[in-house]
Parts: sequence; structure tokens; C-alpha cells
Amino acid sequence: MSDRSTDPVFQLHEGGKLAVQCTVPLSTREDLSLAYTPGVARVCEAIAADESLLPRYTWTGRTVAVVTDGSAVLGLGNIGPRGAMPVMEGKAVLFKQFGNVDAVPICLATQDPDEIVSVVTALAPSFGGINLEDISAPRCFEIERRLDEALTIPVFHDDQHGTAIVVLAALRNAALLLDRKLGELRIVVSGAGAAGIAVTKMLIAAGVNAGEVVLVDSRGALHAGRSDLHASKAELAAITNTGGVTGGIVESLRGADVLIGVSGGTIGAEALAGMAPGGAIFALANPTPEVHPDIARNHAAIVATGRSDFPNQINNVLAFPGVFRGALDARATRITEQMKLAAATAIAEVVAADLRPDSFVPSALDERVAPAVAAAVAEAWHREAVG
Amino acid sequence: MSDRSTDPVFQLHEGGKLAVQCTVPLSTREDLSLAYTPGVARVCEAIAADESLLPRYTWTGRTVAVVTDGSAVLGLGNIGPRGAMPVMEGKAVLFKQFGNVDAVPICLATQDPDEIVSVVTALAPSFGGINLEDISAPRCFEIERRLDEALTIPVFHDDQHGTAIVVLAALRNAALLLDRKLGELRIVVSGAGAAGIAVTKMLIAAGVNAGEVVLVDSRGALHAGRSDLHASKAELAAITNTGGVTGGIVESLRGADVLIGVSGGTIGAEALAGMAPGGAIFALANPTPEVHPDIARNHAAIVATGRSDFPNQINNVLAFPGVFRGALDARATRITEQMKLAAATAIAEVVAADLRPDSFVPSALDERVAPAVAAAVAEAWHREAVG
Repeated sequence: MSDRSTDPVFQLHEGGKLAVQCTVPLSTREDLSLAYTPGVARVCEAIAADESLLPRYTWTGRTVAVVTDGSAVLGLGNIGPRGAMPVMEGKAVLFKQFGNVDAVPICLATQDPDEIVSVVTALAPSFGGINLEDISAPRCFEIERRLDEALTIPVFHDDQHGTAIVVLAALRNAALLLDRKLGELRIVVSGAGAAGIAVTKMLIAAGVNAGEVVLVDSRGALHAGRSDLHASKAELAAITNTGGVTGGIVESLRGADVLIGVSGGTIGAEALAGMAPGGAIFALANPTPEVHPDIARNHAAIVATGRSDFPNQINNVLAFPGVFRGALDARATRITEQMKLAAATAIAEVVAADLRPDSFVPSALDERVAPAVAAAVAEAWHREAVG
Repeated sequence: MSDRSTDPVFQLHEGGKLAVQCTVPLSTREDLSLAYTPGVARVCEAIAADESLLPRYTWTGRTVAVVTDGSAVLGLGNIGPRGAMPVMEGKAVLFKQFGNVDAVPICLATQDPDEIVSVVTALAPSFGGINLEDISAPRCFEIERRLDEALTIPVFHDDQHGTAIVVLAALRNAALLLDRKLGELRIVVSGAGAAGIAVTKMLIAAGVNAGEVVLVDSRGALHAGRSDLHASKAELAAITNTGGVTGGIVESLRGADVLIGVSGGTIGAEALAGMAPGGAIFALANPTPEVHPDIARNHAAIVATGRSDFPNQINNVLAFPGVFRGALDARATRITEQMKLAAATAIAEVVAADLRPDSFVPSALDERVAPAVAAAVAEAWHREAVG
């Protein structure tokens, strides 16, 4: 165990990473009578009479709840709501820093899907959006679907869609570098949890040929003949892997152009050796990628990881601040497929003018990304909402 | 309806009154790796192993949820959670300004007591305390009691206890000015909702003679013979009014030394004329007191109201910021009776050196109050917790 008194991480975390700030003057009786009673009553009455005024006259128009049950935190697993709080606070910090979105970490003392849906539904008037975070699969799919149906504010499970958006952005630029079309790539997605399933769906929505994708879970390649699959996997098993690949990662990777690792395990050189030459490897597990970049470069022309100390980091922070900024700006009532696709394109285009194998994903610190994503997301919403 | 575009209240409320602030540096990869992954994982693991570290290494140690269901907002009544948001945001602003407490407004889309208890219980890991606000009686009593039993963080219904603390503070100083002891005063509390019941209990806890208190609700004086009372009123009817006063406010006020109005109605001069000479009138309804101060002065030596434009404003802001600041500082697991009594004494003592009939309650803007309350509350907790 580290010595907390000298560990810079614990020193930084002393007292937490967030604060609430008052944005109005409050030093005179007159200030008080405007911001609080009696003046505030007029604003309350106006909102009670017309609820569409809520985001305009309260902070809800720029505020998101970062909601977790602590069931799948980073690579740490089910550490519960209190253990999860530093990550959710960190997420709120990133929302503010990159998207100027005010985010409140909400760590729930329940892991029951019905209760989570009830609690978040009850919380909804307090926020302009709900970012679900680190909720384990397959519970996360049902929770997100039910909330998306129940609420009139955007709901977004970042582990699914944030990852999927950034993977698609990376793959778009990788395809340009390789001079290939998305629709002709053979793609293996290693890991069929929240991220793997969302990545697969998003790639298909973007034009990847579903039949040419092979999803691999801990028991091997997903195919229509598997009878051991949860509905969330079975749905994809029915449309992917039309070649009927069976077996494990070795069999799945034979002839593949692209490997996307979202499994957290390790993929050995003998499996990679079967890939088609001149392809791409995205190994996202963090801090230990499924394939170390030095090894990946022996088997692929294009390499990305989840780590910040190697080129081409696939980091969700490229997506979620801009996605919510755009959704809030547009007063969107949900996050649609088109908004996610637009976000991916916007991320990819930030570095499109100077694509290189060691630089085809924007830096997590690139300040151009979130505004570009926000504008693209808001525009996509307006396009859909208007017709 | 006011013209919102020129109304200074709406201009001030444009975009809301709160923001989330990041309190750690976040401009380099190194910053990110400390505040977020991979560094943050060490803090998560430490808290998961020892949950007592939560308030130290996250913002929960200084953060309070301001929770309402929108059922009894100001004098506006049941305007729902969205209509309530500007008040809860205002409350959060006051928490920050006066107590340096980070408060998050939570407006719930349910008014079912069971659901409110479930939701707030689920939220508890995210906060260091729960301030219940503007929840109608008698539901508020059950909700507070059940949450107080279920949670290991402080729960405080401000409409009850904030009001009661400040009324007690005012009454202490009024008694000094009148040269009377609390135990010899005959007191009428007009209004037997959340505030009236809590005020009565607090006064009794502070030494007021229960038998000399008469609580009056919309049907008249509470007495042991009333069979139409909710348990929260019946409990007090059994121990107050041992003289067996029946009838309305006129009968109740006959010979009374103190009138405490928390009803929101109007009390006429003919009723006030029956009071004992040289007493006190606290008319708290806001913006329209039960007795206008100009009239009250004809019937009492000492007058206080809930309004900021007259002397001696009885304003909850004198209590709640310091109460939670003290409870959070002390890492208290609840708010005890002794902590509330200590808060009242601390408020009273701020102006004790120079008591005058037009100045026996500190100003709502007096910056000495919250630190004094916080210190007294923390000390009371330590005294009880240790010994």
C-alpha cells in the first residue's frame, strides 16, 4: 500500500476536486432579494407555468449528472459507490475543463436496475442530462434503454458510446491512411462488454460491413450458432460474422484488417501473426493494453492505444464533453445515432489535414476538439428535429 | 405577468445561479494522470478498502444535497420540482456564501414518501449531508425521521429546524430584554405545520414550560381533547396547553406573553389586545407577516418578523449554513438536539453585547454568525460523541 502522506495523487485529492460556485452577486440585501426571497418566487411561478423555461432560468440548462452504481469502475471492478466517487469527480472535472459543462457526480447505493431507473427518473428535473458511467454489462444496456425512453433529457452511457465514437473517429482516419473504405475492412472486436457491443453497433451504423465483423468474448467468436448469449450479444451474433468463424481470438484474427481490443486481456503474437498485412490495431485496455504498442507495430501499419504515453490515444474525453455541450446547447431531448456519428466525424476531422501513422487521433488535450464536436452534435440534432 | 425581458429578477436568473468549479490543475498530461486515470485508481481502492476516507479525499466532505419534492415551496405551495429549482439553487448559493458549504440542488419528480426515502438513501454516498427543503407537512416528519434513521450523514429539514433555531435565538434575547426567564413565559405558536411543531419542540427542549405553550392550527387551539389531530400534532397536544384553552387565536392569546406566527394568515388587533402587556410578537410569514410590525408594536415591547426591510429579521440563513458547516467539520453522523440548541445560543450571543428592542437578532448578512454557529455545533457534537 502506498504511503498516502507522500503520494502526489493523494495530496492532490485532499478535500476533493470539485466545488460549487455562486455566479450571482450576493453581498447586499438587494442582491439577496433578487437571488432568493422574495424575488425568486416570480421565477418559480414562471417555470411552474411553463416548464420549458427551466433550462433558461436555472443551472439545469448546463448541468449533467454523472451517475454510477460503482459496479464496473475503471479496471477495478465492482468497488461500490464510495470507491467510485474519485473517478466520477474526475469525470466532472473533465466535463468542466473540456466542455464547460457543469457536472455533478452521483454515486448510488444500489445496483438494482429497477431502483437505478427509479432514482435517476426522480432526479431528472434537477439536471439537463444524464451521463451513465461505469455500470457493468449487461445491466447497463437495460438501464440506459429504459431511462432513454422515460426521460426528456439526454441519456448517454459513456463506456458504450463515448468509446464507440472515438473508436469510429480513429478508424475513419486509419482507413484514410491505409487507403481503404470502411465497408471493405474485416474487423475483429475483442471483448463483448459495454464497449465492444457499442463499438460494433456504431461501426456498422457508420458503414462497416456487419458480416465482416467478428466479436469475440471470453468463450470465443460470437456467431449465430452460439446458444449461451445474453440478448445484447445474441442481437449482434445474428448479423455479424456471416463467414461463421468459430474458435478463439487466433481463429478470429486470421485475415483480419483491424483489431479493436476492449477486453482487458492480453492478445499474443501468434494470434496477431494471422492478421492481413498493413492493417490496424487499436488496443484500448488501460493501463495494460491487450497488445503493447511495440509489439502491435510488428503486425500492423497503424496503432492506437488507450494510454496517454503512446501516440494516438483513444480517450473518451475526446467525445463526452463536446457531446453534452452540443446536446445542451441544442436543448436536445436525447442523443441520437446521427449525433454520435457526427461527433465521430468531427473528432476525426480535427487532425484530417495532417494525417500520419503516429498522429491520426487528436490529443486528449487538444482544445479544438470539444467545440467542434459540440457544433456537429447540435447541428445533427437540429437537422433531425427540424426534419 | 411581469415582462421577463426587463425584470431584474429574470435578468439575474438567466443561465442560473450556480456553477461547478474544478479545484485542481488540469492543463498537462501529468495533471490528468493524477486527477484522473491512472492515478485516481489508487484513491478509489483506498476508499473502497476504508470508507471513512471518502469525506477526506472527495468533495463529499464539504458537500450537501438540498432536496425538495416541490410540495410546499415558499408561500407558493405545491408547484412541483421544476418550479422549486430556483429556490433550491438560491439555497445552495446561501450555503456557499455564508457557510462555504458546497450545496447541490436536487428537485425530485416524486412526492411519495417511500420513494423520496428510497431515492435519498440511494444518493447518500454522494453527499456529506442532506438538507430537506419545502416538503409539506405531515409528510416531512416521516421522511426526515426515516432518513435520519437510515443514513450515517446529517439530515436536517430546514423548514422545521432552521426556523426553530432562529426563533429560539430570538426568544432568548427577547427574554433578556424583557428580563423574563424562558420557563415563565406563556407562548402562543400560531400555525402547527412543519415550522410550528419544530419551534414548539425546540422551545420546550430549551426550557420553555410545555404546559404554558398553546399551539393553534386552522381549527383552533391544540389540546388533549382534540380528536382530529395527526400524530405529529397529537404528540404536542398531549403535553402543551395544560390550562386547556379552547377556541381560536383570540382565546389562545388571552394573557399570552409571546406570539410566534408561522401560519401565513393574518392575526387581527382584537386578538392581540388580549396579550399580556410588555410581551413579544414574532410574525414570521413572508412577505406578508401575520401581524404588520407597525401594528405589532402597539401590542408588544419586542417585535420581530420574517422580512428583511424591518428590524430583527428571523431568517433561516442565520442557522443552516453554520449548522452544516459545523456538522461537516466535525464529521458528525447526525444533527442532534444539543447541536441545534448550541446553534441557537451561538446566534443569540453574536448580538448579546448590545441588545436593543430594534436589534436583538443578528442581520442575515452578519458574517460573524455562521462561523460562530459552526464552532458551537461542532463542539456540541464532539461533546456528545466523546462523552
